[in-house]
Amino acid sequence: MQVLVYGAGQLAQMMYLAGAPLGIEVWAVDVSDKTVVHPVSKKLSDMSLTQAIDAANVLTVEFEHVPEELLEEADRTGKLYPSVDAILVGADRVREKKLLTSLNIPNCPHKIVTHVDQLDECVELLGESLIIKASRDGYDGYGQWRLKSKSGLDDIKQQLAGLDLRAVPLVVEQCIAFDRELSIIGARNQDGDIRIYPLAQNCHHEGQLHVTIAPAPRMSDALQEKANKIFHDLANGLHYTGVLAVELFQVGNDLLVNEIAPRVHNSGHWTLHGADTDQFDNHLRAVLGLALGSTRPLGVSAMVNIIGCSSFSRDLLSLPGCHMHWYGKSVREKRKMGHINVLAESTLALGSTLEKLTQFLPMAHFPVLQSEAEKL
Amino acid sequence: MQVLVYGAGQLAQMMYLAGAPLGIEVWAVDVSDKTVVHPVSKKLSDMSLTQAIDAANVLTVEFEHVPEELLEEADRTGKLYPSVDAILVGADRVREKKLLTSLNIPNCPHKIVTHVDQLDECVELLGESLIIKASRDGYDGYGQWRLKSKSGLDDIKQQLAGLDLRAVPLVVEQCIAFDRELSIIGARNQDGDIRIYPLAQNCHHEGQLHVTIAPAPRMSDALQEKANKIFHDLANGLHYTGVLAVELFQVGNDLLVNEIAPRVHNSGHWTLHGADTDQFDNHLRAVLGLALGSTRPLGVSAMVNIIGCSSFSRDLLSLPGCHMHWYGKSVREKRKMGHINVLAESTLALGSTLEKLTQFLPMAHFPVLQSEAEKL
Repeated sequence: MQVLVYGAGQLAQMMYLAGAPLGIEVWAVDVSDKTVVHPVSKKLSDMSLTQAIDAANVLTVEFEHVPEELLEEADRTGKLYPSVDAILVGADRVREKKLLTSLNIPNCPHKIVTHVDQLDECVELLGESLIIKASRDGYDGYGQWRLKSKSGLDDIKQQLAGLDLRAVPLVVEQCIAFDRELSIIGARNQDGDIRIYPLAQNCHHEGQLHVTIAPAPRMSDALQEKANKIFHDLANGLHYTGVLAVELFQVGNDLLVNEIAPRVHNSGHWTLHGADTDQFDNHLRAVLGLALGSTRPLGVSAMVNIIGCSSFSRDLLSLPGCHMHWYGKSVREKRKMGHINVLAESTLALGSTLEKLTQFLPMAHFPVLQSEAEKL
Repeated sequence: MQVLVYGAGQLAQMMYLAGAPLGIEVWAVDVSDKTVVHPVSKKLSDMSLTQAIDAANVLTVEFEHVPEELLEEADRTGKLYPSVDAILVGADRVREKKLLTSLNIPNCPHKIVTHVDQLDECVELLGESLIIKASRDGYDGYGQWRLKSKSGLDDIKQQLAGLDLRAVPLVVEQCIAFDRELSIIGARNQDGDIRIYPLAQNCHHEGQLHVTIAPAPRMSDALQEKANKIFHDLANGLHYTGVLAVELFQVGNDLLVNEIAPRVHNSGHWTLHGADTDQFDNHLRAVLGLALGSTRPLGVSAMVNIIGCSSFSRDLLSLPGCHMHWYGKSVREKRKMGHINVLAESTLALGSTLEKLTQFLPMAHFPVLQSEAEKL
């Protein structure tokens, strides 16, 4: 069996490594130049993109920002999983919000804005503390803005003045004081079977995921069930095939959907050592129509992203349950270089190993590790 | 880091898959034609053998029967782990027996024979029930013979008459009525650190390993300690670097060494899902001078070899803890095509899953699975 992945980063690499034992051959598309490369070595394949599409049993994606003409070409083959619709939900915040509303899934109060003057109405309806997001990423001048009080409104309006908000609308969200960030990840296969991993707790810093703990500590069955229902509603609502990740805010006993990622997800990397079947394995099984594997956790796991650095002692591998995944990229500020998985028998043991782990790492690059370890 | 493996079968493939996350690039030598190939796709590399040897940080083997001129070339680089001496212990039963004797490690009573007439003395010393083995495999006419009573001696002498027993001596062993077959596998790194996996129980059929259960059921601490001591004595005695496997017979409360394999081993494949760090990962860590990983079992595991068949339902993947490793070879009688790992929370649960597994497999090719499942 052959699978072609749009995107040639670490997620495609981890799909390749999960596929090989199952006899599944995974190839990756470098979408910047439409070449087909080996997902691990990144060496050019002998196949053109057209040949690779023909040879593949299934096409899939490792990220949602695949150029639309490539997605359309993939879609025409009838072999693309998840569907274009599902992928675009992850790439376009307006689609995402409309889906959540139509499925009646709780999310942050928000308005969609196509003209700067509508911002006044937003302040009236949602309050003065707002996050303003471009509906799509990667457009010059677009991004995210933060309104802290009404007095900043004119300044933001000026910044937005030159943008074509009819083409790329804004999603204006109420700032929510959440207790913590969680994610729910699961797989749905072509038969509609669903397997869901336990909720994971995520710690971000400056917009980047740094540490995931899974299963999320101090979690009630009721909250896990709420998350499972959200996953079921979304995956079934989208007729989804593959692994789907949903980022959530916990506010008291409620969960609000923050973001939908139609793919394997950084906050699911703990499953590589910490769950019966890892997310890459289950993604391949799902898109190829194979039986899904158990998502049972094998203990308590942490996933620690290695961001913007490569100089640290490999002796961290001596710690019990400690495993490294290196993505083989050149170092750049803020770049995800790899991650460390730690599997422990108890929350206490995990905290102790994470404390020890800090001794092997340059802590400037791991700003939340110490405090997350202490909380366990 | 780059590692070159002599041998391009499934063991090299599994080393490649264990190495990639650690940023270790593994290449394989097809020893039949001295080409360098990708361990998974088996595609020819751009490198000649000489270039690959130069590029590698470390050379290692996936089997002990590497042609001696290749081993000598590898040895001259100073980068071969384990050493030639250790590899040849696995390839030559006379060396193996001499090592066991010199280290005072219990094994089956035996004699080394260089002339057929010495067989009479063997019968006197060891009894009438004997196994006669060529010291080295793969020589025309050589193999294994079984003496059941003195009356068969003349017949065997005739069969052996044409062989040059000075060049390739025989090892004549007393037939032992053992309780069960076990194996002890561990890793020793360049610093002399040792990590040992729990004893595994092996079930053979017609000379081939069919099922491994690990940790071995109904095992006393005393027996595990005896096995650990044997491992320590052998690994330290050989100044061994890498993963080493030792096949054992359990006779009451004693362990006898049956065979030494200077490499990752089929009876250690359960570690891919069932142990904190798998044997391929630990082998690479050992030969590259990295810290060894924990060998803690994550539950109770079974490894079921898929031998001589490829037609069965992939729905076995729906069973909890069930994972398949496919080696990508064409089907041949008695050929190991892949294996199935099952990880369970208890011996009882493992037995139950193995019972279910029988429903997905053509039982003619899995002659011991049902009975092994029932014993759990």
